[in-house]
Amino acid sequence: MTGQRGPGRPRDEELDVRLISAVLELIDSEQEVTVSRVVSVSGVSRAGLYRRWPALTDLIAAALDRGRVVPTEIPDGADLREAVFGAMVGDPALAAGGADASLAAIEARFRRRIRLVMADRELQRTYWDSHVRLRRAPVERALAAAVARGEFRADLDPEAAFDAFAGVAYYQLVVRGDSLAEPATQDRARAALDLLWRGMQPEGEAARTARAG
Amino acid sequence: MTGQRGPGRPRDEELDVRLISAVLELIDSEQEVTVSRVVSVSGVSRAGLYRRWPALTDLIAAALDRGRVVPTEIPDGADLREAVFGAMVGDPALAAGGADASLAAIEARFRRRIRLVMADRELQRTYWDSHVRLRRAPVERALAAAVARGEFRADLDPEAAFDAFAGVAYYQLVVRGDSLAEPATQDRARAALDLLWRGMQPEGEAARTARAG
Repeated sequence: MTGQRGPGRPRDEELDVRLISAVLELIDSEQEVTVSRVVSVSGVSRAGLYRRWPALTDLIAAALDRGRVVPTEIPDGADLREAVFGAMVGDPALAAGGADASLAAIEARFRRRIRLVMADRELQRTYWDSHVRLRRAPVERALAAAVARGEFRADLDPEAAFDAFAGVAYYQLVVRGDSLAEPATQDRARAALDLLWRGMQPEGEAARTARAG
Repeated sequence: MTGQRGPGRPRDEELDVRLISAVLELIDSEQEVTVSRVVSVSGVSRAGLYRRWPALTDLIAAALDRGRVVPTEIPDGADLREAVFGAMVGDPALAAGGADASLAAIEARFRRRIRLVMADRELQRTYWDSHVRLRRAPVERALAAAVARGEFRADLDPEAAFDAFAGVAYYQLVVRGDSLAEPATQDRARAALDLLWRGMQPEGEAARTARAG
């Protein structure tokens, strides 16, 4: 019942919209998120909140994830390199799944999310389990399929590769404080992704040629 | 006068120790760091504080950096792969430059630092400019020297490579919430670093053989 939730009844969806908006309002105003405050700001009853979200941490994680979507599967015939690079350092508005959010709003939301998970490891693990892992899956599956087709090294670990790809993007935002919208950041990040891509190729020219066929 | 500071006079060093301890005390107790509070907690006069640190942000950045050191240069004959991997995902106590700090204390300090820089982009840029850049330099210089010796691709950008290496470690701590002390995290992180290392090699077997000679 916690974590992943299906579409549910329309009434439940409406409750969730109110609860999630209330959580984001509390976070934006730098208030600690408590059950009492969520009840008060949302107007949803305490019983209604607990019925939908037995664990408050799950609700906060869902609120941090608002506006983000699980990417669609990468089809077999697609340009895998471009699809992966785009998923990692492409247009953040597209990655956020909505053309309505400004770059500034997306970056502010990102910074807020990192602050909160660094302050609360339980929230961090919950967010990882119920949201990040799901969003990684389509790219990981596409990498595994490419390994099976012999396009990458046979010993490639798609999870480790994803960590390295995504790490490039996180480093720009978390350590350098750069925006992926800046051309210099794009160039450096793509050069880094390219090193990884080369390292994923099978050994030897023969395999590389076979791949082009 | 701001940013990098030399050893200074003993009296100045003693003032800095008190000022930096005061800043960390405020941060640990979740209080906003203001000049008045630093003066009050440290016992250093307002004039003394401004003389040493005309910009409060520089002092906060120095406080966040306490206990971290600029690594020594990597000598030409060293095992560069092990030196780089160790710098990225090796023993965090060694990386922090002190055997006295526990792993839990180092991780708590890391999480606190990320929270603060994500809340304040000016602090993030200051911390980057006066501390992170300096700490990156020895590894970047060693990579550039290896490029010059023909051990890596001629078009390798040491900055981009460093971003990718460090990104692997940051992803474990910031997104997964894993500790680099866990064997499973070590294995995954080293597999990711290995992909990068392979991607940095010059093209073709000839070059790879030449390198071994």
